[in-house]
Amino acid sequence: MPAFSQRLSDAILRTKTPLVVGLDPRLDSLPQTYQSLIQGNIWDRAQAVRDYCCWVVDAVADIVPAVKPQLAFFEELGPAGTQALADVVKYAREKGLLVIGDGKRGDIGTTATAYANAYLGVDSPWGMDCLTVNPYLGADTLQPFVRTARERQAGIFVLVKTSNPGSGDFQDLLLSSSANNSPETLYQRVATELNRLSNEGDAATDRYGLCEIGAVVGATYPQQLVDLRQRMPKCWLLIPGFGAQGGTAEDTAGGFHPNGLGAIVNSSRAILYAFDPQDRSHRWIDAVRHAALTANQQLRDATPAGNL
Amino acid sequence: MPAFSQRLSDAILRTKTPLVVGLDPRLDSLPQTYQSLIQGNIWDRAQAVRDYCCWVVDAVADIVPAVKPQLAFFEELGPAGTQALADVVKYAREKGLLVIGDGKRGDIGTTATAYANAYLGVDSPWGMDCLTVNPYLGADTLQPFVRTARERQAGIFVLVKTSNPGSGDFQDLLLSSSANNSPETLYQRVATELNRLSNEGDAATDRYGLCEIGAVVGATYPQQLVDLRQRMPKCWLLIPGFGAQGGTAEDTAGGFHPNGLGAIVNSSRAILYAFDPQDRSHRWIDAVRHAALTANQQLRDATPAGNL
Repeated sequence: MPAFSQRLSDAILRTKTPLVVGLDPRLDSLPQTYQSLIQGNIWDRAQAVRDYCCWVVDAVADIVPAVKPQLAFFEELGPAGTQALADVVKYAREKGLLVIGDGKRGDIGTTATAYANAYLGVDSPWGMDCLTVNPYLGADTLQPFVRTARERQAGIFVLVKTSNPGSGDFQDLLLSSSANNSPETLYQRVATELNRLSNEGDAATDRYGLCEIGAVVGATYPQQLVDLRQRMPKCWLLIPGFGAQGGTAEDTAGGFHPNGLGAIVNSSRAILYAFDPQDRSHRWIDAVRHAALTANQQLRDATPAGNL
Repeated sequence: MPAFSQRLSDAILRTKTPLVVGLDPRLDSLPQTYQSLIQGNIWDRAQAVRDYCCWVVDAVADIVPAVKPQLAFFEELGPAGTQALADVVKYAREKGLLVIGDGKRGDIGTTATAYANAYLGVDSPWGMDCLTVNPYLGADTLQPFVRTARERQAGIFVLVKTSNPGSGDFQDLLLSSSANNSPETLYQRVATELNRLSNEGDAATDRYGLCEIGAVVGATYPQQLVDLRQRMPKCWLLIPGFGAQGGTAEDTAGGFHPNGLGAIVNSSRAILYAFDPQDRSHRWIDAVRHAALTANQQLRDATPAGNL
């Protein structure tokens, strides 16, 4: 199997879009057709989540490169929900989509290895292509994820500058010293570490110069996106915050390389819940597909993705 | 139900120890009696993990206040493992133990709420008393966890200074400005935020002045433990790193209030795997209990827990 980065580049070039559809199955937002299941027990609710996500996968499988299940919404349904997650991951991969598990995991030593073993690689029990990772515990705790990603043709996206209003509370703190005596923030220091990892000799670099290490940078911070694109040239950027969180297609433009690669842009709610909440038919699926097509066009019009 | 902090204080005073037994079920370390299950399929392996953890619970239920399942080792076994986790949590609570889910979760807005709903409170599908939380995404992302903990008589432990060798990579970075012009690190800034939360009017403070907000501080950094104890007087400290990671009972002493409350000390491997790995009998259970009793005595001898 080709390395993660190559598979991601190929999928983007095939679909001509960097759009990732975030699978955030919120029970109170699902279409009317699932109301009877939602009124049932937790296994019924997990069934609603499973069916809904698989329909979304069907609606977008030929027009986007990847989906990003948000693990929290599955874990909220207990073991039933985690079984639904496994089913959705398998289904999405069968439909040709890359799957980015948004779990923001992070732990020390062999515990980090356990998380990496859990989620990364098609032979793992969850079988994901990629996992989001939290760097707070230290650079040494990223190593097990990096090593596993390299061994299993998988990828990681490490949180750098997140899309939420309070992401600056800790991430934007100015450090008292920096390598080149220019002011440096915590998130820039994390980016420096990711850039170092992306330049290691055993990094799995694809034919476009990108590797298995990525960074999460919110569309809601377009200036920082430009800065971080420059600080980590070989790293993919996963850009959340486009759509319902207020980031525009234009805001994401600085995250791309001129060839239209190097960034993927996630939209969850603006696509998942684009339908009329009162509609009791299956037309909601058309609305989801239409919203994805619209987002694709917005990204092509406003970013280097138009060059794909 | 009493607030989390009160229940934790009561359990510590009853058992006269701050010891938490970490449930890190590593397949390659389980007793010989589980070898045939471990050779089976993933559901068999999850059964081994479930049985093993429940036996550990039986071995320690009357001599420690809490157990701390490490979610990574359950997730490593896929949906089968997460079902085992749910079973172990339920069993431990039935045996009167508090359960601290070590998942180090963290996410933004409604996603953080989903994680909090998932894990916190006996009516949640996982039914835990407490969850470990990662602060990197910002102070705003701690709010949903705090709110849910308060609503459900649960608790959180936020990562501040972790026990791993590289915890300093980001946590120890000196900030360029601080409130009182004395040097301040990132982890100290996180502690300041936790202290602020612990002083909010709706904090669920117990009769000993402790609340539902806790901090994770490694036994491997005893100086920082003393400093952090002072910075967050109302917060519980969860101290990992005692035992197999090299921290001694003496190293944890600075984390306690003089009355012996205010800190809990986790040991995982030194207790879980205290048995002869070649022993094919059930004597491993005695070895686990003996190791927990030994750790209890070490903590009573070397810390204010002797005053309980």
